[in-house]
Amino acid sequence: MIIDKLYEEALRSPICVGLDFREHLLPEYLLESSASLEEKIVTYNRKIVDATKDIVACYKLQIACYEALGLEGLRAYCRSVQYIRENKKIVIGDVKRGDIEITAEFYARAHFSGDFEVDFVTMSPYLGEDSISPYYKYLETGEKGIFVLIHTSNKSSRDFQELSIEDQPLYMKVAEKVNQWGESFISSSGLSLIGGVAGLTFPEDMKKIWEACPNAFFLIPGYGIQGGKSIDLTPLLEGKKRFIINSSRDIIGAHKGVKEDHNFAECAREKVQIMKEDILKWQK
Amino acid sequence: MIIDKLYEEALRSPICVGLDFREHLLPEYLLESSASLEEKIVTYNRKIVDATKDIVACYKLQIACYEALGLEGLRAYCRSVQYIRENKKIVIGDVKRGDIEITAEFYARAHFSGDFEVDFVTMSPYLGEDSISPYYKYLETGEKGIFVLIHTSNKSSRDFQELSIEDQPLYMKVAEKVNQWGESFISSSGLSLIGGVAGLTFPEDMKKIWEACPNAFFLIPGYGIQGGKSIDLTPLLEGKKRFIINSSRDIIGAHKGVKEDHNFAECAREKVQIMKEDILKWQK
Repeated sequence: MIIDKLYEEALRSPICVGLDFREHLLPEYLLESSASLEEKIVTYNRKIVDATKDIVACYKLQIACYEALGLEGLRAYCRSVQYIRENKKIVIGDVKRGDIEITAEFYARAHFSGDFEVDFVTMSPYLGEDSISPYYKYLETGEKGIFVLIHTSNKSSRDFQELSIEDQPLYMKVAEKVNQWGESFISSSGLSLIGGVAGLTFPEDMKKIWEACPNAFFLIPGYGIQGGKSIDLTPLLEGKKRFIINSSRDIIGAHKGVKEDHNFAECAREKVQIMKEDILKWQK
Repeated sequence: MIIDKLYEEALRSPICVGLDFREHLLPEYLLESSASLEEKIVTYNRKIVDATKDIVACYKLQIACYEALGLEGLRAYCRSVQYIRENKKIVIGDVKRGDIEITAEFYARAHFSGDFEVDFVTMSPYLGEDSISPYYKYLETGEKGIFVLIHTSNKSSRDFQELSIEDQPLYMKVAEKVNQWGESFISSSGLSLIGGVAGLTFPEDMKKIWEACPNAFFLIPGYGIQGGKSIDLTPLLEGKKRFIINSSRDIIGAHKGVKEDHNFAECAREKVQIMKEDILKWQK
């Protein structure tokens, strides 16, 4: 199952590189080249993948960064995703879709087949289980998985996710459901194809969610620029290492301010190494 | 402001046509033509717009139906949206995006400018205000608006939206926030550029939400095939008519089973007329 592959990759390195493209990150030589924006993006992403694929667990593309550039941006998204899969690495489409059942079927088809095909997608839970269940038929093949937002890394996650229901915050209700939905999709290594997203920016909450979902694999955003600290991963490093830590700007923008910015891919690789050490130093 | 225009349109007819394309709805002559799928979709949507634009308030495109068809589907989405705007009709991008602040900025740029530009978008609230606030700079122009999901029309909306917080369901907490966020964007006709989505499938809940958001304009899904009934709109017809009722499959699939299915656009027009009468008959 794809989740076993991700788990094995994460054992070697828990780093997920967020290929969240932004134009200002392009090194000068690419920015000034006569290539189309689509080609520039694809070149940039490919070089980062080439430079890091042996030391990371997987890649995640925030589709909004590409959607913002219109059809051309989405063409670059498709080609970047395809390149990662051709390189036998796992790719997560960070799409956070969430809609009623009949529409969720369309989103599942969109992101688990055809042009946009990825291995995992992120999903928003506000509409409940029938917004998730249309993905099940893809999970049944063992080749696809999902990560449901439980507690996000942003400040305003407090607006609703932390509201109290029967003495528990809403996100714990979501965590319970994620755990329950995931029980039908558990692999031989004891991990579910339905995982969770919990931000490192709220470490206490993250730990509670972690414990409430013993079979879930976690995608953890918020490390680095967003404020999340590696020391808070210590409890997660004690048992089964069922998580990946995503970082985007810190890695793919590591060359910013560096004089020879055409070495952006090497800068990204160095940053991954530093991040990996920063996280694994808490492992006993 | 765009919300005043929508309100005036809705006074004439409260119908929003959901152009939620599905391949099986294509009439035989189009299905069998040698045109590309993109051209078939665009032709289909244009003909429905031509046949209905004088008797509807606006159009809504569920982007998932297009995303499911990959890049070609999204090209058809862009061209359909552009056609509606060229015809001076309002178009809602039903995208239900929702992400952290920095990402929400990308989504706002994606759907309020460039290839995918629409007049209104729908948004999911799970991530709280900083997932909404990046849209504000577009609202400040008066030319764009948003509809935030409060209570959706699907069965599983119960999973989280109806959980009780301080004796109130979660959706009422969302309604309160929508009303509060909207206070900064109120037009001369007393309506906010931040509106809400509340399904007709839960009429009692819809009425409570309606009352909690006195300045909000509502996008109401769930009429027809999903089970929502026009009689439940009676209380909304008593005061200021600040709502549109969306219907998709009932309208754009009205020709299904009809022998001369090349008259699909006329069938759609007839269905809009029937729906309009069905709703307005409850007006006193």
